[in-house]
Formats: sequence, C-alpha cells, structure tokens
Amino acid sequence: MAFVGTSVSRVDARAKATGRARYVDDIALPGMLHARLLRSRIASGWVKWIDTARAEAIPGVRAVVTYRDVPSHTFPTAGHPFSLDPSRRDIADRHLLTQRIRFYGDEIAAVVAVDEATAERALDEITVEYEERPPLLDMTAARESGTPEIHEGTGNLLQRSDYSFGDVDAALKAADVTVKGRYVTQVVHPCALENHGAVAALDPQGCVVVYTSTQIPHICRRIIGQALGIPWGKVRVIRPSVGGGFGGKQDAVVEPLAAFLTTIVGGRPVKLVLPREDTFVGTRVRHAMELALKSGVRADGTLTFRVLDAHSMNGAYASHGHAIVSKSGTLFRQMYASDAIRFESATVYTNTPTAGAMRGYGAPQVIFATESHMDDIALALGMDPVRLREINLHPEGAVDPSDKVMEHTAALAECLRKGRELIGWEAKRSAGRTTGLKRRGVGMACFCYPTGIYPAGLEVGAARIVLNQDGSVQLQVGAAEIGQGSDTALSQIAADALGIPIDMVHIPWEQDTDRSPYDPGAYASRQTSVSGTAVKQAAEAVKAAVLDRAQTMTGSAASTLDIADGWVVERRAGARLVPVVDVALDSYYNPDTASRIAADVSCNVKTNALAFGCTFVEVEVDTETGRVAILELYNVHDSGRIVNPVAAEGQVQGGVQMGLGYALWEQLLFDRKTGRTLNPNLADYKIMTAIDYPAVSAFFLQTDESTAPCGNKALGEPPIVSVAPAVRNAILHATGIKIDTLPITPERLFFALRDRGSTLPLTP
Amino acid sequence: MAFVGTSVSRVDARAKATGRARYVDDIALPGMLHARLLRSRIASGWVKWIDTARAEAIPGVRAVVTYRDVPSHTFPTAGHPFSLDPSRRDIADRHLLTQRIRFYGDEIAAVVAVDEATAERALDEITVEYEERPPLLDMTAARESGTPEIHEGTGNLLQRSDYSFGDVDAALKAADVTVKGRYVTQVVHPCALENHGAVAALDPQGCVVVYTSTQIPHICRRIIGQALGIPWGKVRVIRPSVGGGFGGKQDAVVEPLAAFLTTIVGGRPVKLVLPREDTFVGTRVRHAMELALKSGVRADGTLTFRVLDAHSMNGAYASHGHAIVSKSGTLFRQMYASDAIRFESATVYTNTPTAGAMRGYGAPQVIFATESHMDDIALALGMDPVRLREINLHPEGAVDPSDKVMEHTAALAECLRKGRELIGWEAKRSAGRTTGLKRRGVGMACFCYPTGIYPAGLEVGAARIVLNQDGSVQLQVGAAEIGQGSDTALSQIAADALGIPIDMVHIPWEQDTDRSPYDPGAYASRQTSVSGTAVKQAAEAVKAAVLDRAQTMTGSAASTLDIADGWVVERRAGARLVPVVDVALDSYYNPDTASRIAADVSCNVKTNALAFGCTFVEVEVDTETGRVAILELYNVHDSGRIVNPVAAEGQVQGGVQMGLGYALWEQLLFDRKTGRTLNPNLADYKIMTAIDYPAVSAFFLQTDESTAPCGNKALGEPPIVSVAPAVRNAILHATGIKIDTLPITPERLFFALRDRGSTLPLTP
Repeated sequence: MAFVGTSVSRVDARAKATGRARYVDDIALPGMLHARLLRSRIASGWVKWIDTARAEAIPGVRAVVTYRDVPSHTFPTAGHPFSLDPSRRDIADRHLLTQRIRFYGDEIAAVVAVDEATAERALDEITVEYEERPPLLDMTAARESGTPEIHEGTGNLLQRSDYSFGDVDAALKAADVTVKGRYVTQVVHPCALENHGAVAALDPQGCVVVYTSTQIPHICRRIIGQALGIPWGKVRVIRPSVGGGFGGKQDAVVEPLAAFLTTIVGGRPVKLVLPREDTFVGTRVRHAMELALKSGVRADGTLTFRVLDAHSMNGAYASHGHAIVSKSGTLFRQMYASDAIRFESATVYTNTPTAGAMRGYGAPQVIFATESHMDDIALALGMDPVRLREINLHPEGAVDPSDKVMEHTAALAECLRKGRELIGWEAKRSAGRTTGLKRRGVGMACFCYPTGIYPAGLEVGAARIVLNQDGSVQLQVGAAEIGQGSDTALSQIAADALGIPIDMVHIPWEQDTDRSPYDPGAYASRQTSVSGTAVKQAAEAVKAAVLDRAQTMTGSAASTLDIADGWVVERRAGARLVPVVDVALDSYYNPDTASRIAADVSCNVKTNALAFGCTFVEVEVDTETGRVAILELYNVHDSGRIVNPVAAEGQVQGGVQMGLGYALWEQLLFDRKTGRTLNPNLADYKIMTAIDYPAVSAFFLQTDESTAPCGNKALGEPPIVSVAPAVRNAILHATGIKIDTLPITPERLFFALRDRGSTLPLTP
Repeated sequence: MAFVGTSVSRVDARAKATGRARYVDDIALPGMLHARLLRSRIASGWVKWIDTARAEAIPGVRAVVTYRDVPSHTFPTAGHPFSLDPSRRDIADRHLLTQRIRFYGDEIAAVVAVDEATAERALDEITVEYEERPPLLDMTAARESGTPEIHEGTGNLLQRSDYSFGDVDAALKAADVTVKGRYVTQVVHPCALENHGAVAALDPQGCVVVYTSTQIPHICRRIIGQALGIPWGKVRVIRPSVGGGFGGKQDAVVEPLAAFLTTIVGGRPVKLVLPREDTFVGTRVRHAMELALKSGVRADGTLTFRVLDAHSMNGAYASHGHAIVSKSGTLFRQMYASDAIRFESATVYTNTPTAGAMRGYGAPQVIFATESHMDDIALALGMDPVRLREINLHPEGAVDPSDKVMEHTAALAECLRKGRELIGWEAKRSAGRTTGLKRRGVGMACFCYPTGIYPAGLEVGAARIVLNQDGSVQLQVGAAEIGQGSDTALSQIAADALGIPIDMVHIPWEQDTDRSPYDPGAYASRQTSVSGTAVKQAAEAVKAAVLDRAQTMTGSAASTLDIADGWVVERRAGARLVPVVDVALDSYYNPDTASRIAADVSCNVKTNALAFGCTFVEVEVDTETGRVAILELYNVHDSGRIVNPVAAEGQVQGGVQMGLGYALWEQLLFDRKTGRTLNPNLADYKIMTAIDYPAVSAFFLQTDESTAPCGNKALGEPPIVSVAPAVRNAILHATGIKIDTLPITPERLFFALRDRGSTLPLTP
C-alpha cells in the first residue's frame, strides 16, 4: 500500500494553514441576519410572563421569537441514526424555545437583527418574569422522593438498565478478598476550538438550507426535519470546515432553531453562532457519574466477580441520555474476565446543562472507576497492578456474551509490556521515594474501546467514487471531516485501493447532504473503519471497471491486470500498459462504449473490533501545594494498522491533553443556590494549554484487524480513556492516597494530604 | 403517466418569479475582484506595442494581463464532447489573449480591479499601437487568391465537405423542369437575456472553481483545463441559474480567461461579466450562409435531383466551425426524397465576430434556402406549394443513406394538413388580393430536425437518483437547465417512472461538475430525450429496488407490485400496501438490511428521432413602406409526445419570435472599412419585443416516438426553423416578389417593389 500507513499531509492542510478554509462564522450570505438567544436566569421553573415589545421596537430588529411562536411538538437532538422501533428512538423532549425552564440557560426567546450588536441589545430589552423552583443540581437531590419532576412522569429517572452474567452469589463466595470502591467523575465540556453555530436560509425552491458546524450532517438533516415538522427531504445540511467537535457536535443543538428562524424572516439567511459562554452552558457536557464497584479476587489475583452500580447525571434534557452509561456498562465487561459480573445503571435528570456525547462516550468515567479499582485490588492483594491486569485479561478471540463482538486482535498484553518498558516500571515502582516534599510515583491504566456502534446501533457507511476524465477521481463520502483528518484517511484508502496517486483523489472540503451519500457521521471512532469500508468497496468497484475497460484496450485479461501509480500494469511483471487517464478518456468518449465509470456504495457493517491500550505515567506530587506534575507519560495503543502515523500521533496527543485536563483540572461548576454555571469561559474553566502540556509519547503496536478496510481499529476516542486513572494510580503510588473524585485538583489533594499527615507509606 | 403530458409548473418558477434565483451576476464572494477586457480597435493585424504602466498605477487595479502573460498553447472553445480521434477534435486556435488580431473586438488584455468602474477606467489608460491590415469582411474577399490569411496555412478555408447519393447526371436528364436559386442569410446574434459571465476562484485545495452561465458545464470544465493546461479533474464548474443561451453559451467564451485571471491574483475570486456590447461582438453569432440550389422536377412534381452548394461564414475563430454547415447538409437530404442529391460546402474565415452554435445549428439557413426554393419550384410548375411538398416527403420508416437515422415517426403530412386547415389555406391562397396598397398573402414552409447529435457525435446521458428518508428523491443530472425547462421535464419523467408526486423530486437548482454526473449539456434539443433516457433508467432502477424491499416488507412478489402516488400498490387491483416513505425508512434504518437506495446511470444513446413541423403564415405587405405585418401564424409540430404542453408552447412562441426576427429584422452590421460592429446593442440591433410580436399559435400532433423515454422528440430548436421561409413565401404570394436575402427589411422589400412597379401579378 503506497499511502495507507504513511504520514501523507492532510488534504486540508494548505487550506487550514493559509486561513482559506471556510468555517460557519466565515459564511456571509447576501441579506444575512444575525440571531441571539435569550437564556433563562433561573434553573428550574416557568416563564410567567414575557414582554418583547421594547426589543421589537429597536431599529434593525427583524424578529423576536419566543416559546409562544414555535411548534408545539417536541423533537430529539441526539446524533444517533433513527430507529424503526419507536421504543428505541431518542427521547423527543425539546421545543425550539421553552416556557418550562429546566436549567440555568434554557432557551426562551430569540432575536433576529441586522447585526449581532443590535440583537444583543434587543435581548436586554426583553422583560421576563419567572415562577422559580429550587433547582435540583445533583443526582441525590433529584432522586429524593417527593421532589418536583424536571420531566413530568419520570420521577427524574431518564432510564435504568442492568445485566448480569454468571452466578454472582457463587462468585462472591469463591472470592478470597473483596474490594469496594466508589468513584465520582465530574461535569466537563468538550471545548472544541470552534463554537457551535449555523447559518440557515430558504433556498429558491423552498427547502431549508443549513450551514453548520456538525459531526453529523445527515442526522442533523433528519432532526431539523423533525423539529420543523417538514419532510426530511426538504432539508439540506451543508458542513463547511469544522473546528472540532469531540462529541459536542454529535447533537443538533443550534441547527433546528436557526432553520426555524429563517422561516420567520421569509427565508433570509440567519446566522446563529453561539458565544463561548453559550457554548459552555447551552450545548452538551460530559455526564458526571457516580460509580460504586465491588470485586472479588482469589489470592492468585484472578477475578471471581465484579459488580458495578453506575449513576449518570444527564442534566436537563435527554439528548443521548442513557446510551452513555449503557456503553460504560458494555466496556465494563469487555476488558477483564471474571466468573460473574453484574451491572446496574440509572440516568438521572438534574437542573444542569444537558449532558450528551463526548469523546469516549461513557468510557472515561467507567475506566476511571474500574482502573482505579484495579489498583485498589492490587493494593489489597499486595500485587503489582500490571500483573493483576495481565492475569485477568480476556483471551484473544473471546466473544462478548451479549453483543457477540469478538476480540479479533487484542494486543493489550503487548501494550502493557511496552508501557512497562518505556517508563521503566519495575525500577520506578520499587524505588523508595517516600520522603521529601516532592514525591514521585508511577501509575498505569488500561482501556478497551469499540470501533463504531455495532451491534448496539446501525453501522452504515457510504461512498461514491466517480472517475474523472484525467484519471483522477471525485470521492464523495457522508463521513464528516471535523478536524480529525477523516478526509485524509479516506483519501489514502481510496488512492491505495485504486492504485492512483493521492493527489488524484479529490474530496470536497464541504459536505452537502443533498449530494453526499448517506453516512451518519463522525462519532464512535467509526469513520476510518466503517466509512473506510465503503470507500474501499467503491474504489474496488471503480478499479474493476477500469480494468474491464483496459482489457478491451490492451487485449490482456482483466484478471491479469492491476493499477499502480496511475497506470494499468501487468499484475505479475508490473509492466506499464496504459495510463488510467486513457482508460478514463475512453470511458467518457468512446463512441461505441462510452459510459462514465462510477460506484456508489452503501454498506451495512456488522463487525466491531475492540481497540486496546494503556497509559503509563510518572507524576511528581508537591505535598506542600497539592500540585501534580506529569514527568513522563506514554500512551500505548493497539488500534490495528495505523493509517497515518502523524495523524494518529495527533489523536493521541490531543486525547491525552483532554485526559490530563479530566484528571487534574477541568470541571464545570454550578452555583449551589441558583444553578448558574460559574465558569462558562476559557479563563475560569481551565483546559491544558500548550504551556501546561507535558512531554507525552504515543506508541502503536500495530496488529492487523481482519474486519477493517486496512487492518485499522478505533483511534479517535481511545487516547483520552485511560489517562485519568493512570494519573490517579500514580498519585496513589507517590502518596498512598486514593483520590477517587475527579478532577484531582491541588486543593483536593492538598486537603487529603493534610488530613493524612505529611509522611505516608508508599504503596507496594 | 401522472405528470408527463401535463403542464406542471416549472420547478424553478417560484425562484425566478420572486427574484430569488441566483445568476452569475448575483454572485458576490468575499474579496471578489472585477475584470474587464481590452478589445482590439482594428479587425485585422497585430498589436505592435502595448503599454499598461499607467493602468497598473491606478489605485484599485490588482492586475493588468496582456497577451504576453498567457500560456503559449492554443485551445478550442466549441461545446462538443471531446473526441478520442485527434482528427475529429475541435480546432484549437485560441489564446486566452491575443497579439494577432482577427476581428474588431479581439481580446488583447484584461484588467482586474476592486470594482468594475476602476477596471473600466484602467482600460482607457492602456495604450496600444497596431499594425493594421485591411479586414476581410465577406467570404468572397476572404477567398480571393493572394488574400492574407486569417489563420496561417488555411487559405481562409476552415473546411470543405461534400456528399452525393444517386446519379445526379442521370437525374438531371430525367427532369422536366430545372429550377435554380441563390439564397443568402445574415449574421444574427442569439441575444440571450443574460450576458455571458463567469466568476472564478481557487478553492482551498487549489482547484479552479468557475461559476458560469453556460449550457455545457461539463464540457466547459474540460475546456478550462485545456486552456490553463491543468488536469481536467482540477476544474470545477458550477452553473447557477442561466438566463438563456440559444447556442451562444455552447462555447467556453469567458470561462477560461476568468479561470486564468484568478490564478494571477492568488486565487481571489474574479468576476468577468461581459457588457451587452461585448456579448454582441465577443461571443458567438449565427453563421451567414450563401446557398446555391438547383433542383430538377418531373411535370408531376416529383423531384429528380437536388444540388446544394453552401458557403458558411465562420468569422475570426473556428469555434463550432464546419459542423454547422455540415448539419445543414444532413438536413438537406432528410425531408424530401429525390433520385439523386449532391451537397457541397465550405466554411470560410473572415475578420468578423466568430460564428458558433445558435438555435437550429445550420437549419434556419438551409431550410430558408430549400423551403424558399420549393416555392420557387411550385411557382415554376404552377403547383400548390403544399402539394409539391406532400408528394416529395420521405415515407415513414425511411432510412438516411449516410447516418442510418430512421424516420420512426414522421407526421409531417399530418402537420401540413393541420396547418392548411388552421390558416384556411385553399381559400386564402386562391383569393385574388392583387390590388391596393396593402397586399395579403399566405405562405408556408416545412422543416425536419434531429433529436441530439447521434450519429455525428456521441450522445451520453447521465442521471443519479437517491431515495431520501421521506420517500422523496434527489435527482442529479448533468443536463443543464438554462431557462428552457429541462429540470422540470426531467423531474416529470422521474416522478412518473418512480410513481411519486413531482414535489417529491428534488433537483438542485445549481449544477456542479464535481458532483453531478457527466452529461455534455444543453444543446441539439437533446436533453429531454437523451438525458431523459438516463433519468428514466435511473428512476426505474430505484423503483425496482423499492419494490424489492417492499416484497420483503409486504410478502408480495415484487413483480406484482407497482408504485403510484407515493404508495407501493398491488399492480392489478391498485390497493395501497405500504407508503414509499416506509420503504425508504427501512432502506436507511433496518438494522439487518439497511442500504440506501440509489442509482447512477450513464447511458450511451444510439438513436435519433427526427422531429418535423411546418409554419403557415399570412402576411400583409404595405407596398408604400415595405413593411410586413404578420396577420396569423401557425407553427405545427410533430415533436412526439409533449412532456409539458405549456413549456412546449413557450418553446414555440420563443422560437417563432426568433424566427420572425431572423426573417424580417435582425442583422449584425459591420463597418465596411474597419470591420467594427455597427449595432452591438439592443437599441440598434432589433429583436422583436412583446409589443411587436403578433398572434402566433402552436399546435402539436402528438406521435409516440418509440426510441425516446416518453415518446418525445426535439422541440427546443425546431420552432425557429421554418418561420423565415414561410414568411418569404407568403410575401412572394402577396407581392410576387422573391426576396432571397435575409432579413426581409422594409428597405429591401420597398426597393424590390419599386424596381418591379407597384402592380404585380399574384402567384398561383
């Protein structure tokens, strides 16, 4: 393969480096208006009364729309494929604007004006009178009996689920040691570089056209149709360049309202780009979870049972809802074997910003719990934590008892060996560094992560390839380039499958649901595998058609031909017979046989390969301040074959950056009385910047996954997953203190150190 | 069929009626610059010296480009499919800008500036010194021996061709009467409502994107690639709404230069929209022809031989060149039978604006000659002109001796009966109205016209249809909507073939060669037939896939199912089983079988059906002024089944309007000394306006053409073809005067009347 496996430059590198890539906020359409949203100043209750007259009177205001003006039906927002089974559809609990307030920042009204400043000014002139209720800001409060319901009839419980395999009671008895733990994760925000935004207009034929920064153009199209109550075919979603999503744009957050607003102003374009504050509050956050774990082990370290009770805080609206903790539950059973396992879960509504998809989709929470817990077990047994994991790993070829996913390739044991070697595990683990103000420790954690959502959900990929007259191809995909590099990876796959140089693969930098084939989009680390499968199949079909035509042109049987570097060649000798451009010209212009060569593939992928990996980290804890410095960090991945090493490295570096923020710094905070978000900006909400970011190394143990288009497995989300527990475990190693609540802020660690005294025994 | 055959509203009616359709001049891209062209002030010679320094110094001027700055290779401009055979390719005789001047208005330099006014001002500051040669403004002058050559090595002859069938010498002897005539047609301009224009820019990936008002987006893409010397796949042509073409936009006139100019200014968008004066002079005109005819007839009126010698004036550059008069020659033999026939032709370069395609493509000229000549023969025989034609028509099923096109349906005899009846032929023809200052007469003429260019050229049609989730479809075609209504006709065909309401067919109002399937475009009255074939095939494939899936869903065999009004129904009883929307949802979301339904068809059409028709007209000649009033005019067409009667009527009314202008008013005039076009504006070049336009009626005798997707045949061009000879023949009937040179202006007729005296015998 000429391109897969090599670090070809991103196909959008030049556009982005020169500032010519067009993002939503760059879009300026003739006559475009600007919208701003009025958000609630309470977290729970109702709007009793609203007066928009003064706002409407401001020159330049074109429309003021409130909850009174929007359709009465509700719609869902989650970026899942639609389900034919009504019971499996996402919960439709949103109005475009709402009178009922469910979190501080709920959307009450919108102003459309000739510019942003006028729209902002008009917001200030809207008078709202509320009927306020005390907000329910945590799961305990929300689940107390007699508590008012955030969504009527729910008891504030969005959904419950559970499973168990094996005989837990028997396994309980077989355990020599039983270990319990309770792990708590916080609310964080994806903080994509680009805020959420959309521009909507009616096209001359009366269809709604929405330019939006989304991970899910085709799903977004459906949701807009649902929200407006119009046929989905009358909606066209155009995705320009996207400045990151990380799951936050796997919801239709701003698009339905932008689409509605253009219909209010006669189809004039309306731009609705959220300010950063609105993006923090009004889009999607990661579910906070409380995870209670109980495990039994034999003296030799083998697990007899594992029980997890997980509560997931969903915030105000359903969005992805219970699917997140449900995935936590699946991951819970997929890394380690045990005689029995039980999982119980509940997703709870609270009067906080809505939680949805975010990189890892339930994995960072559950892996923080289970991998912290593994160290707790190792500590209880006096066993090396790596060894404990090694002896409990599922064997290669293991089949999940529920979803039947097979661990085709599973190089986690090799990842552990590599990580141990890289960080110098044994030496650092046994070195006594128990004294002094700065204490060092090493820790690690593992993860597994699926590639796509099969079998929990539908996995359809699609690609269309058209051979141009010059032997180049147009590659159209429904997969969404959101900065992660999918256009590049898919171009690499196409170029190799076709046997042409990658600069002869033209992929549109802008995606359009009216033209691109249907693919649900960028989530679940699925695109290179699922969409890549469609691209490869389409490329193979085009190649076969080229070779068929070349057979006529050369007199050599198609089966003896191949394509290499833009030439039809003899498969064996490699001799060049005819350039692809000549075959292409023949396909367009041969008077007898002209028929353009193209393939349009829609494939239903029914496999799912688990990616694996681990984080090894050395920390230094300043016992006087509670600050944690990362000295060395290695993320070792089994993500199958790496399609583009530099792009893969980028995924790991970015994932670790998010993982370290999750471990140490990041948390969205709410005022305990009002529910207002206290830090909805990048000054007060601390993400790790380039200055803060430590030296991190990525390693790839390349296995060859047979179910994937080029041996590849998930890599978009995995790098974040095992970072926080590895850091937590290293701090445990350095200080003997278990911090089981994220983030492990200096404050939290300082008080824990103070409570325990300053000289503490190191863990073994 | 629910939609084909009915006058459904144009799919773009609302957009165009409300002014929301976007044309090239409506396009405003960020940072867009404006270009203006410097045209030569001589008709023949060279630029000796050019000074652009003062122009470049004007604030706001971004670039001044001259012939010195453009690539040295030449390219063709004609909108024909590329040929694999180099000898059949269009002549590549253009530079983007030229030092060698071949007509008054040749393009020497271009200014790119921040606005049009600045660009215009800069043009005035460019100093040019010419080496001038006397211009060759007519074919006689151009072909004189020793005349300087306009293109070196040509002797000013672009091409010659001839054919003969049968034994002309023998047929000459068999003739009882021999009739000669010489007919001359003028240079006219298509005068599309929208001038030629393009906006070009480099996209972030370095491809050239050109928005242009063109009939031939895909061909234009290739020509831009040729002109710039870049791979054709790196060119993207987007066709917004187009305000008419009539053949004038079947050339790449402004696009290559616009594309070149954006590369000069670093990829910034450049708009190059020609002023009306430039469109008149610098685009394409209809070939003037001189046609010498000689025919032999027996006393019974049957033709024994027909000989035509046609000279076609091509102007300065090749463009479509000899293909025009070559088509004249084909048409010459396809309406009437004779024992023998001979055709000779030559296309000649002159120092006049370049002639190219224009509605009818050689037919208006040759039919003016042959149908005037038929009346001359009838006059010579003392026979009714209709009768003369009737007895000489090819029989139905006749096969052309050269191109093997069969006259599948040929209702010309019925058309003649209908036309005669409509105008009251016998009564008006025999009525003596020989006296008085205003004299009335009736005349008629016939035509035949092919549907598409097979077998002279390649006929490839393409369509892609994708089933949306709501049961509607996206219809993507390479055919070009240029105002003629093709998007509507193709939507009708798709809706009927699919069995869904037409408002569930979504066709993009803008076409994009990177996304739309390859189809050469709008010319040769081909689209409803050739592109329609592809649409129908794609729709049938989608329908078959829907019924296959419906078979699984309903348990009824697909062969027993049909689709009607958006429902899958029992083919026999018509009972509704499942709505198409449910089948569509199943195709997208069925966990086991999801696979989007789509079809992408590229079909090579190897048939060509001749359309037929005739014009019957009554005129009143004012013998004092030479003015001709049209009292009644009937155009009767055999264009097979009519897809959309109102749209068809529109084609006829528009065609007759152009035909009457051709007959009576229109002519582009050149200064005899300098070659300057004297009337390049709509004040001095007279086209018939709504005020001038007489009552005209269209009639369709609907035959069912078996080779066409819905029984249809050519209708875009035919309505113009027989108008001028019918008017000429009616004037002959009214006055006894043969005016064999177009246009029959009052001046020309006045002097002819004066020369003959005022009382003249009527023709029989």
